[in-house]
Amino acid sequence: MDYRPRPDDTLFLLRDVLGAGAQLRRLPPFGEVDDALLAQVLEEAGRFVAEVIAPLNRPGDEAGCRWEAGAVATPPGFAAAYRAFREAGWPALSADPEHGGQGLPAVLEAVLYEWMAGANHAFLMAPGLLHGAYDCLRHHGSAELQARYLGRLASGEWLPTMALTEPQAGSDLGLVRTRAVPQADGSLRVDGGKIFISAGEHDLTENIVHLVLCRLPDAAPGPKGLSLALVPKVLPDGRRNAVACERVEQKMGLHGSPTCAMRFDGATGWLVGEPHRGLAAMFVMMNAARMQVALQGIGHLDAAWQQADAYAAERRQMRAPGASGGAPSAIAEHPAIARILDTQRGWVDGARLLAYRTGVLLDVARHAGDAQARDRAQRWCALVTPVLKAACTQQGFDGASACLQVFGGHGYIREWGVEQHLRDVRVAMLYEGTNEIQAIDLLVRKILPDRGAGFSAVLLELRDELDAAREADADAQRRLAQLRYLATSVAAAAPARAALPYEVADDFLRTAMLALTAWAWARIEAVAGGDPRWTRPAATWRRHALPEFDMRLAMVKRACQEAAGAPPG
Amino acid sequence: MDYRPRPDDTLFLLRDVLGAGAQLRRLPPFGEVDDALLAQVLEEAGRFVAEVIAPLNRPGDEAGCRWEAGAVATPPGFAAAYRAFREAGWPALSADPEHGGQGLPAVLEAVLYEWMAGANHAFLMAPGLLHGAYDCLRHHGSAELQARYLGRLASGEWLPTMALTEPQAGSDLGLVRTRAVPQADGSLRVDGGKIFISAGEHDLTENIVHLVLCRLPDAAPGPKGLSLALVPKVLPDGRRNAVACERVEQKMGLHGSPTCAMRFDGATGWLVGEPHRGLAAMFVMMNAARMQVALQGIGHLDAAWQQADAYAAERRQMRAPGASGGAPSAIAEHPAIARILDTQRGWVDGARLLAYRTGVLLDVARHAGDAQARDRAQRWCALVTPVLKAACTQQGFDGASACLQVFGGHGYIREWGVEQHLRDVRVAMLYEGTNEIQAIDLLVRKILPDRGAGFSAVLLELRDELDAAREADADAQRRLAQLRYLATSVAAAAPARAALPYEVADDFLRTAMLALTAWAWARIEAVAGGDPRWTRPAATWRRHALPEFDMRLAMVKRACQEAAGAPPG
Repeated sequence: MDYRPRPDDTLFLLRDVLGAGAQLRRLPPFGEVDDALLAQVLEEAGRFVAEVIAPLNRPGDEAGCRWEAGAVATPPGFAAAYRAFREAGWPALSADPEHGGQGLPAVLEAVLYEWMAGANHAFLMAPGLLHGAYDCLRHHGSAELQARYLGRLASGEWLPTMALTEPQAGSDLGLVRTRAVPQADGSLRVDGGKIFISAGEHDLTENIVHLVLCRLPDAAPGPKGLSLALVPKVLPDGRRNAVACERVEQKMGLHGSPTCAMRFDGATGWLVGEPHRGLAAMFVMMNAARMQVALQGIGHLDAAWQQADAYAAERRQMRAPGASGGAPSAIAEHPAIARILDTQRGWVDGARLLAYRTGVLLDVARHAGDAQARDRAQRWCALVTPVLKAACTQQGFDGASACLQVFGGHGYIREWGVEQHLRDVRVAMLYEGTNEIQAIDLLVRKILPDRGAGFSAVLLELRDELDAAREADADAQRRLAQLRYLATSVAAAAPARAALPYEVADDFLRTAMLALTAWAWARIEAVAGGDPRWTRPAATWRRHALPEFDMRLAMVKRACQEAAGAPPG
Repeated sequence: MDYRPRPDDTLFLLRDVLGAGAQLRRLPPFGEVDDALLAQVLEEAGRFVAEVIAPLNRPGDEAGCRWEAGAVATPPGFAAAYRAFREAGWPALSADPEHGGQGLPAVLEAVLYEWMAGANHAFLMAPGLLHGAYDCLRHHGSAELQARYLGRLASGEWLPTMALTEPQAGSDLGLVRTRAVPQADGSLRVDGGKIFISAGEHDLTENIVHLVLCRLPDAAPGPKGLSLALVPKVLPDGRRNAVACERVEQKMGLHGSPTCAMRFDGATGWLVGEPHRGLAAMFVMMNAARMQVALQGIGHLDAAWQQADAYAAERRQMRAPGASGGAPSAIAEHPAIARILDTQRGWVDGARLLAYRTGVLLDVARHAGDAQARDRAQRWCALVTPVLKAACTQQGFDGASACLQVFGGHGYIREWGVEQHLRDVRVAMLYEGTNEIQAIDLLVRKILPDRGAGFSAVLLELRDELDAAREADADAQRRLAQLRYLATSVAAAAPARAALPYEVADDFLRTAMLALTAWAWARIEAVAGGDPRWTRPAATWRRHALPEFDMRLAMVKRACQEAAGAPPG
């Protein structure tokens, strides 16, 4: 069963619960973005994804990519679908009109990409980096590079890559060895090998624009000696550059996406941004990229849920407890199956609200006239993005596995399609920084340096959006307060044990996700007016998922007490 | 990296912690089974698995099975390995000497099969049902069927299948439609279609013996109208029977094992056991089969752990907190990675102790001279087997995913082998009764009928094996007491809400597994004498896995209170 986005669900969360329309209209570029436009774009995006992208998912998985003598053929249909994607203007959705873009809010693009992930993650991989590269070049590229590449990227005429990882340099990019030597004409000569380059080579576009993390000759060792080079597959004069795809990896999933090992062999490139400031140039797009990965987790989970929900309504086995008559019940009526479906629905909707809020705030951080509003939005994005990246991809995988379980033995058969979601989504826990790195980023790099002050401010804002007179709101407020206190506890105990924050980082991140999702559901229910479409997953999620909050809280607390030398208890 | 069993680990648990040698020697057939023999069999089994079975795992996954015109080719090397398996006498390990078996304890066979699952689950699938079929026939087959088939099964000359599932009948076998009509010569004419038949057709043996769940013409509807027929691929006179393999399923994993859709088209068979007592005839082997599936989960997890452990010791990225010098540390030193490795080690060893104890008690239940001892052993097996089947397969999958995470992006690449464990082990959560069915079996079918009395007796036995003067023992005793009380609470609340036991079954099973594993670790540590090989995973498991006990306990308690109409709290 192909994925079919449900724009009404998204519109309810985005427009009715978050009031995104009003927030966006306050931003200078989006004065004209009214609710009708939001609805229209989502409607069209949903149709495009369902009709053009989704049907290629299973065939793409079966066919995979073919490498031959350095060239890579994507699965049948992908090139035509990419052409349609480009012609419909989707790559340009949030790009600046001055570069040929449509100038729409990035949050709409985030939703489009979420749906594409649910429909066909492998297809998404090629255009998935477009906007990151576009933003990077726009902020850090020279005028000449911008003139040559920005418009082509905005339109999707050329596709980019992010060439970071090397065999010895994964989570630790400070170990990157690729060399870039300045030439007399102002270009760079780039030598080195990169791995795990998504869409490093393919047949979708004529040119491919590699953004390559590398080292200049006078570079310091470690991450502070990294620079960024733009290295095109085809040079401006039409010659082929010395860039080669050596192989395509055989992976657990994402068979339709070529993951390439690339060799730069005296390739010609140009510096992007300042020398030795390559990481800074790439990090401009990090929050947006991580948000997109979080949404991949949500997209897969929603797609697996759709499949399981449809199957559970049709499949009849045994009489459910309390059912009358002798006929077997639809398995949706069996408590174990209903619990899976409603809990996962609870994760999808709750996580979506948080992700969409983050998407809107990414727009605010970029475009608000008021510097304080920009800073506040930026603070949210910096703190919440790693939480969503780790928790949504983990839930995408665990939840897709729960949805597979609904099918019984049939879930294991490829024909039903649900097992592909498990295989495809698993990578999202690994790339754009492993989930363990996200947890460290959150606690060690972002919360502890100011002893939790910024994090506390974010949580207080959330508290103030709730109405303590409502039971669900009061419960969420209590958890947000406990989370604030927990951050303080870790900050207080950390000096006594340097390893402590690293030891509790994963539990802390889970605690944060559960408190944030409790907030999200309180907000959704306040607007849903008793509609069981929303209240049923809310109740089930609270009953079956939320108890983890107290467990993780206690685990982190105990570790803090032990680190501080206090007796546990 | 191929899996390499570690007989010393198993021997420590089996011999030193469980005292299995002494227990087995008390059983009439095993008077000669001394510790040296246990060690020797495990040593040889480990070598055979490592040298013959494990190297075919990755190639088998790559090559898969080929169906052509009804014939099925297993992956290259499988047939030769099966020949070696047979010639070394492994199929006959626990079969009765009167049928050509070696007459060794079944628990040794269980260990062999655990290791085979870790080494090459797909290969295991064909001989995996040998002993179930052998036992079934031995207890229920006519003298003529026994004479014709028992010896051939014991030796592995012919392989069996279990043909239960039909498209409309999965968890609900009462919906089986395959017809069996008695013929004048005493045979049956069998018509119908079966799916998900592991090794339904292959090139490993000349004959295949199908045990087919079917309905006689006068059968009642539902599960009480099911009979069991033996239907061979090749008839005693050498003619081919009317049994056909229609296709081989494309699956998420286990590519080396042919999962067949079979058609019986007026095939000749013979009744096994009484008419309409087919389920009873199959259930004779159910505990052993479910135990074997639990051990598949453990085998995969141990194998994935070995891979991750080796990788983490080699791979260097970033400096670990507290590490001196500027060089990157082995990732094993990073807290997030160490936690994964030690927690999963904790699951493997703790679950192994429980599974091995169950394996010994399966032997006791079969062979003890004392009826009371047999009953007590049988009670343990009936109650603990569903816990292990569900919890070990879930942990096999979740833990293999955690081990994959240790590899970062490399874990997603097939070359490293860890992703295959995720794909292969996932099926174990589905077959032999889904994990949700196990939870219902435990609570609804086995605990509630006597209001928890038998379960309570099992837990009291465990309590009495602990020494309350030791902290870990006292902690485990407390949890066992809480679990006993929980069973009583569910029994007390169930009359008020028929669905309650179904709603809490999964949480109850998890609570049970955590309490049992806490018992297992208390027992292991009591014998391990402070050896960090055992104390380190013990401590990590208690810190990071055991907190789930209190969470699940509270969830079940709350549901009981609500069902009984009491205010939650």
